[in-house]
Amino acid sequence: MTAQKSNIGNFFEDFSLGQIIRHATPRSVTVGDVSFYTALYLPRFAVQSSSAFAKAIGYKEAPIDDALVFHLVLGKTVPDISLNALANLGYADLKFLAPVYAGDTLTATSEVIGLKENSNKETGVVYVRSTGRNQHGDVVLDYARWVMVKKRDKSASVGAEVVPSLPKSVEPKDLGKAVPKIDVAAYDRALAGSPFLWDDYEKGEKIDHIDGMTVEEAEHQLATRLYQNNSKVHFNQFYESQGRFGKRIIYGGHVISMARAISFNGLANAFHISAINGGKHVNPLFSGGTIFAWSEVLDKAEIPGRDDIGALRLRLVAARDRPCADFPLTGPDGKPDPSVLLDLDYWAVMPR
Amino acid sequence: MTAQKSNIGNFFEDFSLGQIIRHATPRSVTVGDVSFYTALYLPRFAVQSSSAFAKAIGYKEAPIDDALVFHLVLGKTVPDISLNALANLGYADLKFLAPVYAGDTLTATSEVIGLKENSNKETGVVYVRSTGRNQHGDVVLDYARWVMVKKRDKSASVGAEVVPSLPKSVEPKDLGKAVPKIDVAAYDRALAGSPFLWDDYEKGEKIDHIDGMTVEEAEHQLATRLYQNNSKVHFNQFYESQGRFGKRIIYGGHVISMARAISFNGLANAFHISAINGGKHVNPLFSGGTIFAWSEVLDKAEIPGRDDIGALRLRLVAARDRPCADFPLTGPDGKPDPSVLLDLDYWAVMPR
Amino acid sequence: MTAQKSNIGNFFEDFSLGQIIRHATPRSVTVGDVSFYTALYLPRFAVQSSSAFAKAIGYKEAPIDDALVFHLVLGKTVPDISLNALANLGYADLKFLAPVYAGDTLTATSEVIGLKENSNKETGVVYVRSTGRNQHGDVVLDYARWVMVKKRDKSASVGAEVVPSLPKSVEPKDLGKAVPKIDVAAYDRALAGSPFLWDDYEKGEKIDHIDGMTVEEAEHQLATRLYQNNSKVHFNQFYESQGRFGKRIIYGGHVISMARAISFNGLANAFHISAINGGKHVNPLFSGGTIFAWSEVLDKAEIPGRDDIGALRLRLVAARDRPCADFPLTGPDGKPDPSVLLDLDYWAVMPR
Repeated sequence: MTAQKSNIGNFFEDFSLGQIIRHATPRSVTVGDVSFYTALYLPRFAVQSSSAFAKAIGYKEAPIDDALVFHLVLGKTVPDISLNALANLGYADLKFLAPVYAGDTLTATSEVIGLKENSNKETGVVYVRSTGRNQHGDVVLDYARWVMVKKRDKSASVGAEVVPSLPKSVEPKDLGKAVPKIDVAAYDRALAGSPFLWDDYEKGEKIDHIDGMTVEEAEHQLATRLYQNNSKVHFNQFYESQGRFGKRIIYGGHVISMARAISFNGLANAFHISAINGGKHVNPLFSGGTIFAWSEVLDKAEIPGRDDIGALRLRLVAARDRPCADFPLTGPDGKPDPSVLLDLDYWAVMPR
Repeated sequence: MTAQKSNIGNFFEDFSLGQIIRHATPRSVTVGDVSFYTALYLPRFAVQSSSAFAKAIGYKEAPIDDALVFHLVLGKTVPDISLNALANLGYADLKFLAPVYAGDTLTATSEVIGLKENSNKETGVVYVRSTGRNQHGDVVLDYARWVMVKKRDKSASVGAEVVPSLPKSVEPKDLGKAVPKIDVAAYDRALAGSPFLWDDYEKGEKIDHIDGMTVEEAEHQLATRLYQNNSKVHFNQFYESQGRFGKRIIYGGHVISMARAISFNGLANAFHISAINGGKHVNPLFSGGTIFAWSEVLDKAEIPGRDDIGALRLRLVAARDRPCADFPLTGPDGKPDPSVLLDLDYWAVMPR
Repeated sequence: MTAQKSNIGNFFEDFSLGQIIRHATPRSVTVGDVSFYTALYLPRFAVQSSSAFAKAIGYKEAPIDDALVFHLVLGKTVPDISLNALANLGYADLKFLAPVYAGDTLTATSEVIGLKENSNKETGVVYVRSTGRNQHGDVVLDYARWVMVKKRDKSASVGAEVVPSLPKSVEPKDLGKAVPKIDVAAYDRALAGSPFLWDDYEKGEKIDHIDGMTVEEAEHQLATRLYQNNSKVHFNQFYESQGRFGKRIIYGGHVISMARAISFNGLANAFHISAINGGKHVNPLFSGGTIFAWSEVLDKAEIPGRDDIGALRLRLVAARDRPCADFPLTGPDGKPDPSVLLDLDYWAVMPR
């Protein structure tokens, strides 16, 4: 009898505290990925779009979009961590720590930092800290994530419950690590698309990003495959037609990237996502839905030791088939507005 | 009160004669864009497809497809010029002036060269001359365009009417500027796909390009986003479902690129669009339509000082869901054939 | 009267034994194509995905996916060989002979090696040996293919019937030519995604690749255009709506690439297709179908002179809308299972 060669993914009882998983497949990031990312979302941030612009302000060349780096690292973790996940429960303490450039190769590892069986004994929550590195071994991205994973065998005994303590938000001193010293005088606001810099934004300010973008089946499939994210629910209409929604579920990261690109209109100089404090995929998105988005400035912070850039803590909300001029979030009953797809809490940096 | 951060675009009364607008976002063009362009349209011109072929005849390497350069430059002008446009009225005097290579960064500026309020006082025509430059400041593309733009306020007073004088066609002496001296002996016609060179074409000759290509929603959205063209009507099914057509309108440039790629079959050695004299998007295209195309040789011209290449003035007509063996253009009533999408007048160059 | 400029393709009586055809259009392969290929199929083989991984084991850099090389070479042959084909009858003796890297330019030639008129006098079978070369003239791919081609004129007389003798399978001594000497110690199986190497597979072993992938219209059109394959049936809904199936037929190579990418789950270290012995597109695929796949190890072979890699002869079967846990191939009546799309016989190589 030969060994089972196909990977059916790990179940809850397969994980152990402190376990370190080295994920397949290493991935070289290229200008081809940059073009694809542009075609998928219409990002217009000058730093990522133009190597001439990026070099003028202090980058080696145009850095890879932060969300693309995140999608690539997350994609690697899927076969080992979340192939048997029923729900993606949360992210925390996500930090971009070094710029990624075309030509770099990304790899990912995860450490199991928490395990908690659910009372039904059929599922449990797996907490991991995942780390993306470039070919030199530099950490480019680091984050905690927790997912609800099925047990293979309800009766399997599991270890003691460990729930990690995770920060509600990344501290300002940990921001901006992936941004070289910026020559603000060389930062051309006309080319960047907006006159508004860090000083021009106020805590509590809300911004309607106006534009809406409809998502097609082929688009989200191309995106999710580009990230080598093989989570089953995004691609298999044969199974999903018999599933809970009757259709393929769009990768939540596709909504993040689309909302982030839409947020250019109002946040054109927020050129870098420095950290993600947390986020919730409030509702699933399906093909044919049109994404709108709005932002709120939750906080402003100086970054210790940096007078070139400042940080804005932003809530980014995406909604489906609903313009966001009135900033939808919760209904009169206090429950989430049914149109809301995403509620993301992140730190962006802007020139000062 | 904080300033309005989102861009809602300029209205007719926001433009002033002689005004110069530097457009966001600078854009590095890469081999990723070339692959995308190939996947979107199936172009087969050897010069743009093969760096080995391009180098053999005198280019530094394979140049970026002319229409792709045009789309990228035009895309940059949209947020400032045509976000509130009701109609794209015309192009004239469009000239490609230097080759663009992978790695170059494109920027765009526009000068307002004419303004004419319509008699209803609700709209006006804005004439601009838009210029695309590479990272060295060299002009790679220059053209006049006019669009009908809404007024924000019907009662707003506007300046005197100025309508620029624009040439009906680009003169032969201004052609071929983006083409280095070609080594015609090294131009391999078998590899290029056709034995027919400039001498083989006659004024008045019509060519059916035979092939048809169906356009999908995901395809034109990917294309238009690749060009960072954020014109609303192409992407937002939520709004367009309530609009004039009930569906998204495909970017007219998508039809140009598709028809141009289809025209390879009959014009394989017309490897470069040197100038566009004018063009009309006769009817809008929607997803699911199949594009066919035909060409007519309107004129032939020698290019002063060039014995390596000659110019063909071509009419390129694209039609929807209608093969073009009988060269559709106008119906028996003299009105445009309802299947016609595009009627483009341009100068191509061919080896002699 | 001017010459007919458009290419309507060759008919059976246009071919002659020994004829050599140099195909248009030369094509530079780039990292943009690699990104596209990833987004189309979700391949996860480490060697092609990561230049760091590829270099570590002995490649100059990450090689271009073998199937992509095949699609590009085949695409070039279509306008000359199969534009008037009614059926793609078979492949044989297909060998990858040198690695292809981003930046290389591919060209293709075909030699007519057999001709056989059908008894109805309306069609005939054309046998060609097609060869893909890089810009240095090195042969990177070589294969025999035969297609059924229409006659232009039923009464046209044709030459004597010649049917070439083709091997049932490529011999082990001819395998591995496109693979440099591999440093097996540097081949990191965790990064590659599976602990199983050549020794772990047994003749007769069957592997269910588990995952399924739904194909959209836009996706296969983008793919087939990327390969500059202008075969009409893939793109023209206007004609196909009146055709045999009422819809566009997906390029058979799209199914090969999808099944190959799916086969990663169970064959993660079979990083290279070294040869294709034969293959059959059992049924056509249409948009909306979900592809599943399974493999059988038909044979194992040592490669003379190579102790770094061994060869597995694999049957790769793809099925539509049918999971493959029970390895569908033929029904109880001995006829092909109606869900089966592809039955491919190839040699893969794996580290030993």
